[in-house]
Amino acid sequence: MTNPSVDDILAGLRRGDRAVLARAITLVESTRPEHRRLAEAIVEQCLPAPSSTFRLGISGVPGVGKSTFIDELGVRLIGMDRRVAVLAIDPSSDISGGSILGDKTRMPRLAGESNAFIRPSPSAGRLGAVAHRTREAIFLCEAAGFDFIIVETVGAGQSETAVHSMVDCFLLLALAGAGDELQGIKRGIMEMADVVVITKADGHNEAAAEEARGQLVHALRILPVSKSAWKPRVLTTSALTGKGFDKVIETIEAYERHVHARGYFEERRRDQQRFWLRETIERYLFEWIYGTSPASGELRELESKVVTGATSVPEAAADFLSKYLPGSIQSEDLERPD
Amino acid sequence: MTNPSVDDILAGLRRGDRAVLARAITLVESTRPEHRRLAEAIVEQCLPAPSSTFRLGISGVPGVGKSTFIDELGVRLIGMDRRVAVLAIDPSSDISGGSILGDKTRMPRLAGESNAFIRPSPSAGRLGAVAHRTREAIFLCEAAGFDFIIVETVGAGQSETAVHSMVDCFLLLALAGAGDELQGIKRGIMEMADVVVITKADGHNEAAAEEARGQLVHALRILPVSKSAWKPRVLTTSALTGKGFDKVIETIEAYERHVHARGYFEERRRDQQRFWLRETIERYLFEWIYGTSPASGELRELESKVVTGATSVPEAAADFLSKYLPGSIQSEDLERPD
Repeated sequence: MTNPSVDDILAGLRRGDRAVLARAITLVESTRPEHRRLAEAIVEQCLPAPSSTFRLGISGVPGVGKSTFIDELGVRLIGMDRRVAVLAIDPSSDISGGSILGDKTRMPRLAGESNAFIRPSPSAGRLGAVAHRTREAIFLCEAAGFDFIIVETVGAGQSETAVHSMVDCFLLLALAGAGDELQGIKRGIMEMADVVVITKADGHNEAAAEEARGQLVHALRILPVSKSAWKPRVLTTSALTGKGFDKVIETIEAYERHVHARGYFEERRRDQQRFWLRETIERYLFEWIYGTSPASGELRELESKVVTGATSVPEAAADFLSKYLPGSIQSEDLERPD
Repeated sequence: MTNPSVDDILAGLRRGDRAVLARAITLVESTRPEHRRLAEAIVEQCLPAPSSTFRLGISGVPGVGKSTFIDELGVRLIGMDRRVAVLAIDPSSDISGGSILGDKTRMPRLAGESNAFIRPSPSAGRLGAVAHRTREAIFLCEAAGFDFIIVETVGAGQSETAVHSMVDCFLLLALAGAGDELQGIKRGIMEMADVVVITKADGHNEAAAEEARGQLVHALRILPVSKSAWKPRVLTTSALTGKGFDKVIETIEAYERHVHARGYFEERRRDQQRFWLRETIERYLFEWIYGTSPASGELRELESKVVTGATSVPEAAADFLSKYLPGSIQSEDLERPD
């Protein structure tokens, strides 16, 4: 298969062609140098991203019902004339190489909509690289006219931080009846949430969901007010009965109005740019030390010496750094990196 | 408070003084330059680490009963004349700065033993930095005569990978009755497990635990044989009745014998050294780009330009890299970093 030209792909994106979009994302995810050059040229042409789009991060523990929630939410958004793209970041595919999120069969109704685009998580790779590709995929989706981007994730902190750095609003799904420990662990994530939705609020679960809602409202009150000055809201939904989804959409709209009115939307988009720059540089640094550069060759030699006991790890690290990053380690008042 | 000398601390460690050990770990976790120099000197003196110790990683989802499991296991190990240290890596403390793991009150019996040492997870920081400190804490514990080190974590992949890179054996706790999705997500972690223990196998849960055990045994059979040639085993325990813990200890002992006999123990320790070197260098790279170096100053300037729209992220990244890491980005056949 010959590669399409940058112009072909851009033209396809501009007419909202989902097959071309899928292909462009494949280029972004590819590790082949020629794909990489094409991908960079395409992404450059898609910048700056329009500020008329909205990027919603959604996270929640396994079993919370993310797929059904996104399916229902997405279909409703499409009914409101939005074009919805669903992307995913799945850190657990790190080792297995597999990917569980974003599977189209998990969102059957949304998958059938012509104004929806669903893309599974890029497979294996460091979280940083996966996040980077997802970020580029956002730009491509927006260039293709998708104006409501959902980035889905699951994890215990790191992946949520990555998603938080690329969205305008962060929605956390939670289940009633989760133990104390669960809530403790999710505290760091709770602090990122603009909206918390307690799912499966139906049948004998409904009372528990309402009680959990009350507790969460109370708990969120003690968190410091965020930079956006938006107070996190707690809602309940049932994917079974559809109850609560009107309120979810109202809340997202209220959030959109709030952050646009206060200029916070633009501020957060600027933060996203900053994160993107850092991510890009970090990725090249990793390539530099673990790839094919002279520095990476030296690192491999030091690794052999460490393994045979010819030198210790602290000595080897000091050797490498004083040679390749002079000044990075010798400074007397260097703070221990965090 | 004046800082103790390296010799004072080393002498304290060598006589197994837990207060000195706690203080040495505090130095390792400190970000102050003078603490950092002390910490590095101390850790250097604790190397090479003795190969007569055993490092066990334990992971499991919230609610699986990690604390009670470790409490029971630890007390039994002490009854077998081992000295047990419990360390933790908690990636979710990333944002909140809090730490939930390793709390002594969660392991009341073990906390009361004179041959036990329990340390909470180092607070806030990138996973890499937290992992690095935990790795150094392992060496300190071993220098203080603790010969069975438990490193506890919870997460969805990244933190387990970090823990896996610093232990001799990886034990995964699981609950019966977890949904299909949970098992899919944990697949990457499952592949790291040398031993899987299904907890809370008592009362009306016992049959479900046994059935889950059978299913897991079956599922693990299809995984490729690991480098150690050890076949992962699946056990059940009840912290309520104590049932199954004899078998857990037998299995860990069998694993120890197996990996020592095949030379895999030393191989894995060498891998741990390699990871440690990489971790160290990565931490300094992060300090270099985000700290006080000229490069970090330039990066901050580029960030401002990106934010004001004076340049795009890909352009800014290329500028930075061609200046500070010449050769890292210009090569025509550079692979896209992973």
